[in-house]
Amino acid sequence: MSRFVYAFSEGNAQMRNLLGGKGAGLAEMTRIGLPVPPGITITTEACKEFYRQGEKFPAGLEEEIRAGMRELEKQMGKVFGDEKDPLLVSVRSGAPISMPGMMDTILNLGLTDASVGGLAAKTGNERFAWDCYRRFIQMFGDVAMKVPGEKFERALEELKEERGAKLDTDLNADALKELVRRFKAIYRETVGEDFPQDPYAQLFAAVHAVFASWNNERAKVYRRVNKIPDDLGTAVNIQTMVFGNMGNTSGTGVAFTRNPSTGEKVLYGEYLVNAQGEDVVAGIRTPQPIANLKKDMPGVYEQFEQVAQLLEKHYKDVQDIEFTIQEGKLYILQTRSGKRTAAAAVKIAVDMVNEGLITKEEAILRVDPNQLVQLMHRRIDPAAKVEVIAEGLPASPGAATGKVVFSADEAEERGNRGEAVILVRTETTPDDIHGIIPARGVLTSRGGMTSHAAVVARGMGKPAVCGCEAIKIDPAAEVFYVGDRVIKKDDVITIDGATGRVILGAAPLIEPELSGDFETILKWADEIRTLGVRANADYPRDAVQARRFGAEGIGLCRTEHMFMEVDRLPIVQKMILARTKEEREAALAKLLPIQQNDFYGILKVMEGLPVTIRLLDPPLHEFLPKEEELLVEVTRLRVTGENPELLAEKEELLRQVRALKEFNPMLGHRGCRLGITWPEVYEMQARAIFNAVSQLVKEGVKVLPEVMIPLVGTAKELEILREMVVRVAEEVKARDGVDFEYKVGTMIELPRACLVADHIAEHAEFFSFGTNDLTQTTFGFSRDDAEGKFLPQYIEKKILPENPFAVLDQEGLGQLIALGVQKGRSVRPDLKVGICGEHGGEPSSIDFCHRTGFNYVSCSPFRVPIARLAAARAELLNRKKQ
Amino acid sequence: MSRFVYAFSEGNAQMRNLLGGKGAGLAEMTRIGLPVPPGITITTEACKEFYRQGEKFPAGLEEEIRAGMRELEKQMGKVFGDEKDPLLVSVRSGAPISMPGMMDTILNLGLTDASVGGLAAKTGNERFAWDCYRRFIQMFGDVAMKVPGEKFERALEELKEERGAKLDTDLNADALKELVRRFKAIYRETVGEDFPQDPYAQLFAAVHAVFASWNNERAKVYRRVNKIPDDLGTAVNIQTMVFGNMGNTSGTGVAFTRNPSTGEKVLYGEYLVNAQGEDVVAGIRTPQPIANLKKDMPGVYEQFEQVAQLLEKHYKDVQDIEFTIQEGKLYILQTRSGKRTAAAAVKIAVDMVNEGLITKEEAILRVDPNQLVQLMHRRIDPAAKVEVIAEGLPASPGAATGKVVFSADEAEERGNRGEAVILVRTETTPDDIHGIIPARGVLTSRGGMTSHAAVVARGMGKPAVCGCEAIKIDPAAEVFYVGDRVIKKDDVITIDGATGRVILGAAPLIEPELSGDFETILKWADEIRTLGVRANADYPRDAVQARRFGAEGIGLCRTEHMFMEVDRLPIVQKMILARTKEEREAALAKLLPIQQNDFYGILKVMEGLPVTIRLLDPPLHEFLPKEEELLVEVTRLRVTGENPELLAEKEELLRQVRALKEFNPMLGHRGCRLGITWPEVYEMQARAIFNAVSQLVKEGVKVLPEVMIPLVGTAKELEILREMVVRVAEEVKARDGVDFEYKVGTMIELPRACLVADHIAEHAEFFSFGTNDLTQTTFGFSRDDAEGKFLPQYIEKKILPENPFAVLDQEGLGQLIALGVQKGRSVRPDLKVGICGEHGGEPSSIDFCHRTGFNYVSCSPFRVPIARLAAARAELLNRKKQ
Repeated sequence: MSRFVYAFSEGNAQMRNLLGGKGAGLAEMTRIGLPVPPGITITTEACKEFYRQGEKFPAGLEEEIRAGMRELEKQMGKVFGDEKDPLLVSVRSGAPISMPGMMDTILNLGLTDASVGGLAAKTGNERFAWDCYRRFIQMFGDVAMKVPGEKFERALEELKEERGAKLDTDLNADALKELVRRFKAIYRETVGEDFPQDPYAQLFAAVHAVFASWNNERAKVYRRVNKIPDDLGTAVNIQTMVFGNMGNTSGTGVAFTRNPSTGEKVLYGEYLVNAQGEDVVAGIRTPQPIANLKKDMPGVYEQFEQVAQLLEKHYKDVQDIEFTIQEGKLYILQTRSGKRTAAAAVKIAVDMVNEGLITKEEAILRVDPNQLVQLMHRRIDPAAKVEVIAEGLPASPGAATGKVVFSADEAEERGNRGEAVILVRTETTPDDIHGIIPARGVLTSRGGMTSHAAVVARGMGKPAVCGCEAIKIDPAAEVFYVGDRVIKKDDVITIDGATGRVILGAAPLIEPELSGDFETILKWADEIRTLGVRANADYPRDAVQARRFGAEGIGLCRTEHMFMEVDRLPIVQKMILARTKEEREAALAKLLPIQQNDFYGILKVMEGLPVTIRLLDPPLHEFLPKEEELLVEVTRLRVTGENPELLAEKEELLRQVRALKEFNPMLGHRGCRLGITWPEVYEMQARAIFNAVSQLVKEGVKVLPEVMIPLVGTAKELEILREMVVRVAEEVKARDGVDFEYKVGTMIELPRACLVADHIAEHAEFFSFGTNDLTQTTFGFSRDDAEGKFLPQYIEKKILPENPFAVLDQEGLGQLIALGVQKGRSVRPDLKVGICGEHGGEPSSIDFCHRTGFNYVSCSPFRVPIARLAAARAELLNRKKQ
Repeated sequence: MSRFVYAFSEGNAQMRNLLGGKGAGLAEMTRIGLPVPPGITITTEACKEFYRQGEKFPAGLEEEIRAGMRELEKQMGKVFGDEKDPLLVSVRSGAPISMPGMMDTILNLGLTDASVGGLAAKTGNERFAWDCYRRFIQMFGDVAMKVPGEKFERALEELKEERGAKLDTDLNADALKELVRRFKAIYRETVGEDFPQDPYAQLFAAVHAVFASWNNERAKVYRRVNKIPDDLGTAVNIQTMVFGNMGNTSGTGVAFTRNPSTGEKVLYGEYLVNAQGEDVVAGIRTPQPIANLKKDMPGVYEQFEQVAQLLEKHYKDVQDIEFTIQEGKLYILQTRSGKRTAAAAVKIAVDMVNEGLITKEEAILRVDPNQLVQLMHRRIDPAAKVEVIAEGLPASPGAATGKVVFSADEAEERGNRGEAVILVRTETTPDDIHGIIPARGVLTSRGGMTSHAAVVARGMGKPAVCGCEAIKIDPAAEVFYVGDRVIKKDDVITIDGATGRVILGAAPLIEPELSGDFETILKWADEIRTLGVRANADYPRDAVQARRFGAEGIGLCRTEHMFMEVDRLPIVQKMILARTKEEREAALAKLLPIQQNDFYGILKVMEGLPVTIRLLDPPLHEFLPKEEELLVEVTRLRVTGENPELLAEKEELLRQVRALKEFNPMLGHRGCRLGITWPEVYEMQARAIFNAVSQLVKEGVKVLPEVMIPLVGTAKELEILREMVVRVAEEVKARDGVDFEYKVGTMIELPRACLVADHIAEHAEFFSFGTNDLTQTTFGFSRDDAEGKFLPQYIEKKILPENPFAVLDQEGLGQLIALGVQKGRSVRPDLKVGICGEHGGEPSSIDFCHRTGFNYVSCSPFRVPIARLAAARAELLNRKKQ
């Protein structure tokens, strides 16, 4: 027959399934010699047996518990239920997998009407003893017997009112005795019997309640959602109580083995003399730094230092330790891995490798790549008090402070003078680019994560908060409203693009730091990872940034932003609105040298590394004035009749804009569909690329251009456009008498492209998964519409676990991507596969890419370090699994 | 050693691989005793050997050809190259699989300078002989020796000019002699040698050219595109020439064994005495009906009648026979299956079953379901001369004639008075419904196949031409322009919704006919098919139609059209714009009885059959006024300042419309996303359904409602909404004390839904594939944008074989659908699977559904007969394959 009860001293960390997580942890600390208050654990097997027998204790369990308790009595020199000096225990649940939703803790179990006096005498503190008793009755009643907690709360409030007490602590021992009387009455009334005076009756009822809590509704739902098997069962931990409030040789505290903010290797924490944990929480007395303990109780301090070192060595990580000192004796109640800032995480990981405590691999697994975002952008000092006046979408990370301006022209003029300004617009258009560049940040009241402002700002690494619907902008009056508040031009605000917060005034900012430790850990990551990391960059300055952060190439260079720059937009518009072939060709001829210069710049910066250039993607109407604005203008001119010539011109423009208008631009005439129907545009772009390549080759610069055709859904589209690109390349080679390498490939961003990837791969040397669009088409919702309208509710209602535009949907989308890779490689085994959606910088998505056999991920330059680390972790985690 | 040459009399229809398709056909006719001009076939083996030997004739081939020719000489009593009475032959290619792109025919081969005189003497027609010769030189030069055809054409034109001849036939024998001289000069100049005077040299060169044509570019491309193996090779047919222009006992003609328009069992065709095929084509003389041959040459007619019967019996199908009579002797030159109208196809198929000629199964395979569309709608008499002034999209089939009106109000008023009117609008909105209902048809200048007008018209079975961009409407002047032409109000036009044609005046129309034969063949189809056929119907009147056409249920009843009707729209708008819960509930309370009545009507009509009701699908802004219109109104009011109250009201409405506006409505806040965020709307609909069900059950009517949740992409969406529907159903059951059956299922119309169909099926009793939306999301293009912008070019350039919104894309989409079915059935083997996109009525898509294990297809009521037949064909064709 198996045993149901283990002493802490009999278990270890490996016995998690039998003893539960908490039980195994307590046993482990005991095993390595730490001063843990002794206790026993009732196994998960007992729980399973309990259910097998129809919610009854299995035979022998009660006797085993009694035997365990007798051992504890022996160890502690106290007797359970003793009237002079009672042994008190806590009872806690503890499943093999941590499960909120199960039973809470019951403390002070073992107190009775008889023994409360003994506790008072022993501690010399009558108030304390009765306080313990009333808390125990409440916890036992509420947690074990389902007496509604508010009944006890109400009784407490009534008593405080009667006694004129403001705080609980204003109640004296007499008052607490009265409270115990009333609590017992509530208990009797609700449960139908007296509060148990037999400590074993208390204990068995508590154990029964823990077992039963395994199958309460909250726990069942939690298991279903988290896919935890229903038959694991829970263990029960019974631990002897210790008290930090037994005089000036007692105390309680919490300490980290290293500084969790900076990572510095010093004990970091605080403690209170003659106090219990709850006093620290109540905040009545100010705790002292842990260093003071050295003076107060040098022996205990020394012992604690040793324990801290031991625990850190044992768990090979920074520990967050809870302790209690009872009459000069140190007890460790809990230890866990300590939460830390990104900077601390990096420093600690590197230090521990240098100390020989962990390996480089372990160091990499210790730093959460998601947390590194903190280090990559200027951010608001988390310690500072700030006044948040509104929240929008966190459209582009980083924080910025500046004076509010409402027009792009003003932002340009003042920004270029060196003034810090924030451009505030309802939404931005290509016409605003000149104002965005010199502004410190952008705030818009409309538009989602892919709105013009968001995309442009992310591309520039400039902070932006978008779709902040709480602010109402009146550009004419040069003010915006948030509720009753009015923010005028030149008022100073701070925006936090990482959280979406809009803050009044200048919040204190912290500069991003790429410490030496950070560089070190990234170097280790590079040694381990097998997945390449590239950056998305549209401009030479972004490419410089990307190289500095360790990018191994450009995975996505978009060409449309080049079209949207203010000096080019008029030419682009002429090209689009041309009525004759000659007009169009003239406009394209003007664009060619400009584009060639763009490509020259970025290819030169990336010397020796591949640069993937995507041909024009957005629908043409994005380059034209907005229909609404034209409509207002035309209507105004019609009503006033003031300028018939201008009216005719605007009417014609409106007609053309309407002819190009689309019902669903995302699903419209864009990407390679433009390349097919307007071949001269793509041909101009191809020529600009290869002219630039030829020029660089002649200058002795090694370049590796990769021409990427977007939005391909059929093999034929790519076949036609690939032929065009190859023809242009060969023409340039022949004309200039130079030779160069280049690749032609495609973005895989439509479900159909994944389904026919084998046919497409016949014409593609590389696939780059465009997971932004692929997410939109696979889910059938547009990011701009979803994020503003229903996606928040979807996440709140757990219809979706996360925003699929931020974290790749492995369940659905993942199947399509895996299919695309497999089909593509089936006809072209050396097909190069990458990702260039925003997911390329998100750690769990990077892990997916690693497992699916990608060659590289590509992300924003600021995410390159995160991706390098995440790629190394993916390699390590998947090695483990094998 | 294998033989390379077969006489026609040695082969048969089964020897297709060796003799090619044409050779096997000629052999088969010879075999069954028909008077086919004798000939020989050079096998495909000879062609393969030709290529194996580096494009050289294999050893022995020439001798075998000569031997074959000697046999032909013996049979015909003529000698090849004889100067008095030369044997002439035609040379044609003939691959095992019919392949345009290969060599054209060469006629009259064997003529030389010497023998042309013999032919003239023999036929008594010098002009004829020289005409044959000049044609032969041109064909031989062009086809066999690659002399550019335009050189001959130019010489002919020059000669005609010199001789003052308008037509070729104006040239006399002398002129033709001169032409032969010039043609030979051209030949010599281009080929570098004289035109061959040895008939065998001519023949071998022609055979060589046929072999070589197997590998010309056109043929290679054709094979690649059509997946024909490159190693089949082609055969060559050498057939003796016969001439129908050898006097009044000669002639030529074409006849069908049955009337191809009506199907009546009489010989149908025409012939010309003393003429060649080309004379018929030239149209100089009027051919006579075949019946007159009985009088002219009774013996020949009798023989031809026998041949026709024999061929029909042999091929078990109507034959289209080409014949020539040479000096009283009948020759059959070709027979093939005769093209026929839909009506004829049906009648012939049924008659042939009754005659015992074919089985019911064969009869079903004889009728092309696509052709049946002709019979299901009123159509324009194909014989009539009509003046087409523009072409738009064929948005809703059927033809209609009426006076042009430009407003819905006028269409309503005059239509209800019984006047035939066509409503002409730039595009239609829900506000136009009252005008569409009484109009005969709808013509719009904007919008695609899923525009409001198109969808509403298809739903009503009313003809519509949409997106007819060639017409420019000026509603104020009540005219529309097509180029220079002006069409005014009250002008009569005819629209053809099956082709998109807009015709000036009243074109003669033919009423649809469901003949007894049609009913018969559909009854046979029903006995064979295993796939169910339902109809899409939104109104009781459509459901009546659907039952009449044999629908076995309603596969899609959309509820949004009910919302859009003119008496309800104001309530719907109130519901959407409600500021308080009370306002919204008040509006919903008004809608409930109206919806209940809708469902009562359709469920009652479909007594005993399932009715799938889809809950609200479109985004809410579709029910609101258009932003553009409001913007114009607001701007006007602002500029004039004339009505500040109205301005404030309109501004507020504009604000609300803008708040609901979406960037990509197709991918927006619609379908079940509305059900999740606006649960009260779906709950009202569920209540209306079950109230109607309860009412009918109490009246003793058996109903089978199926509630369908649209646009599901995650299992959780369906789980939440299914729970709501079940709760409402149980509430209604309990309240009314009735019991009824119902199903809850979902539309599968997003790629992700296919990918996670296993999870979704846990909550769905049925799947209905919504292939319209699934096509849009899988391809990533919206129908409205694609069809108007780039799809036509895509089809023209063969990037896509067909419009994927009309014909289901089996290559891409098909994979997703098959995956969805397989995953769904993996967790719920009895999952009912259907399709309710437009593809549900398209034969090749129906075949796919059959093969993929669907339970039913659902389509427009007018397509139900087509679907019934197509489903039977799918069963038969797939039986064959097994």
